[in-house]
Amino acid sequence: MTETTPGWLAPEDLESTRAQLPILYVEAVPVRVDDAGEVTRIGLLLRIGSDGTVSRTLVSGRVLHHERVRDALLRHLEKDLGPVALPRIPASLQPFTVAEYFPTPGITEFHDPRQHAVSLAYIVPVAGDCRPRQDALDLVWFSPEEAASPLVQQEMPGGRGALLKRALAHVGCPT
Amino acid sequence: MTETTPGWLAPEDLESTRAQLPILYVEAVPVRVDDAGEVTRIGLLLRIGSDGTVSRTLVSGRVLHHERVRDALLRHLEKDLGPVALPRIPASLQPFTVAEYFPTPGITEFHDPRQHAVSLAYIVPVAGDCRPRQDALDLVWFSPEEAASPLVQQEMPGGRGALLKRALAHVGCPT
Amino acid sequence: MTETTPGWLAPEDLESTRAQLPILYVEAVPVRVDDAGEVTRIGLLLRIGSDGTVSRTLVSGRVLHHERVRDALLRHLEKDLGPVALPRIPASLQPFTVAEYFPTPGITEFHDPRQHAVSLAYIVPVAGDCRPRQDALDLVWFSPEEAASPLVQQEMPGGRGALLKRALAHVGCPT
Amino acid sequence: MTETTPGWLAPEDLESTRAQLPILYVEAVPVRVDDAGEVTRIGLLLRIGSDGTVSRTLVSGRVLHHERVRDALLRHLEKDLGPVALPRIPASLQPFTVAEYFPTPGITEFHDPRQHAVSLAYIVPVAGDCRPRQDALDLVWFSPEEAASPLVQQEMPGGRGALLKRALAHVGCPT
Repeated sequence: MTETTPGWLAPEDLESTRAQLPILYVEAVPVRVDDAGEVTRIGLLLRIGSDGTVSRTLVSGRVLHHERVRDALLRHLEKDLGPVALPRIPASLQPFTVAEYFPTPGITEFHDPRQHAVSLAYIVPVAGDCRPRQDALDLVWFSPEEAASPLVQQEMPGGRGALLKRALAHVGCPT
Repeated sequence: MTETTPGWLAPEDLESTRAQLPILYVEAVPVRVDDAGEVTRIGLLLRIGSDGTVSRTLVSGRVLHHERVRDALLRHLEKDLGPVALPRIPASLQPFTVAEYFPTPGITEFHDPRQHAVSLAYIVPVAGDCRPRQDALDLVWFSPEEAASPLVQQEMPGGRGALLKRALAHVGCPT
Repeated sequence: MTETTPGWLAPEDLESTRAQLPILYVEAVPVRVDDAGEVTRIGLLLRIGSDGTVSRTLVSGRVLHHERVRDALLRHLEKDLGPVALPRIPASLQPFTVAEYFPTPGITEFHDPRQHAVSLAYIVPVAGDCRPRQDALDLVWFSPEEAASPLVQQEMPGGRGALLKRALAHVGCPT
Repeated sequence: MTETTPGWLAPEDLESTRAQLPILYVEAVPVRVDDAGEVTRIGLLLRIGSDGTVSRTLVSGRVLHHERVRDALLRHLEKDLGPVALPRIPASLQPFTVAEYFPTPGITEFHDPRQHAVSLAYIVPVAGDCRPRQDALDLVWFSPEEAASPLVQQEMPGGRGALLKRALAHVGCPT
């Protein structure tokens, strides 16, 4: 499944569309839970920039034309966590928050220089083995306290740290 | 404020984009509430087709480039209910549901032959006087029981009746 | 684990307390989901009355003193579905609805002649094998369409049918 | 309206019941919102202890026997904010969070030495004039940034600061 299927945007068209419409995204906060459903760990993707900068992020990606939101969630989770992560996509599509990324900083907590993106955000327990498939990415599990700490927060650009704190608040972890 | 501002889509471009990306919408269910917040009436927009067909719908419209979701909600409520409706936009952007309209019928309960639209749906109490400004529209207030009735449901095409029932369920009215 | 542990109410005290305070309950709608999280089946408990009357209900029970809501959910799910049902208790305690059962009928959709009960309601995917342990109970899986049908609805007394319809609406199934 | 009406608990009975059952509470975070629904101020009740200690808290109180949750919310808001605060009780009873106060510290973020209380928490915009009626209470409005600051947080005992941060996260304010 690639994004060059007829009906989907070619890369050059995506560029011009991004200047004209909000782009719909989904975001997932991967978590480990215990038998009572309580969150014990939060999974963050690690990215090492060409200059050695460390940044951490959540599972995230576009919803494609004619794709259901829950299928987009599943596709991006498989892309970022591998085929045996066993993500538990929520039964309800009510997101815990809606994150609005603007190309202009300061309108909301979220900023994306490339585009105006609107992201439906979900907490997704994963029960299996996570094997990030993309080259520059690793997955590291943090305790809720570590995830809310300034150290981790400052490694999450574009407002992803704020989104993570909203997720922690939603599941009843200290922020 | 028109949709021809630089950075927004011209009508012909909107057509081609609609074939390539999901388009982000907001929808609002206008309600009257009593002092304890209980929903007493639901407002539905009435549209008379050129052939005399009656259809009813909710407040609905696109989110524009560089527009916040809450500003889009306010703009469409003012457009459909007039300037003195006094809508109470929710403090939280967590929608009660996400409605996915596909050009292909049957994928979800929602269908829009023009496009793949993803709609964030909110319940919006309105306290003021509603004066629909667009020619073909009137606003009629129904009791929750009437709103859930087969008579009203069958006048709401494209899945809007199903969306209304989700709203009624969310506020604790019988469906 | 019985309810006669010191600090918990003896049966006779429960009777008098029920006349004086709202009693906190949890309710769970057991569901089967597919890989994308979509609800495919809803599990209803079957009860045959001494007069042969069939009634169906949800997993339900009190929250005990000094018990967490998520532990009460887990305990009642194990009690009603057996030890290998593998329920996935939600990471967030935000319920999809709050059901208020009054001893007086007609105040809400919910009625319990014994007491004023306030119930936090959750949708709980179960992945394992369900073996109801209590004598008069069996678990039957229905499609979402069957669960919303008048036939099933009329077998769910006290407003449980209404609660089930709210659950279906929340996960995007037709009601 | 007092709590000595037949069917309600006398003070001495409340004491013993508190040792045996979780007690149901409602809590409200009073906010000012702008026309687009965005939270601009958070109202906190000020309490000066007999030793001069300053503490701040939210609107909070028990749900009585045979009282609806939304009527309990309205009653406590009127008690704490006065008769012309014009609170906008939510149309939906889905709380943004459930706060579990245990007499034992450390089980959750919330602690109440008197009892095990389970609290349904709501964000309530108030449009009118707030005149706290009880002797030791004043209402002070804070910006979202001030409300999340360590200075204000440390003045909110029993976990109320954590509850406030969950509310801020839910409405999209930084925490």
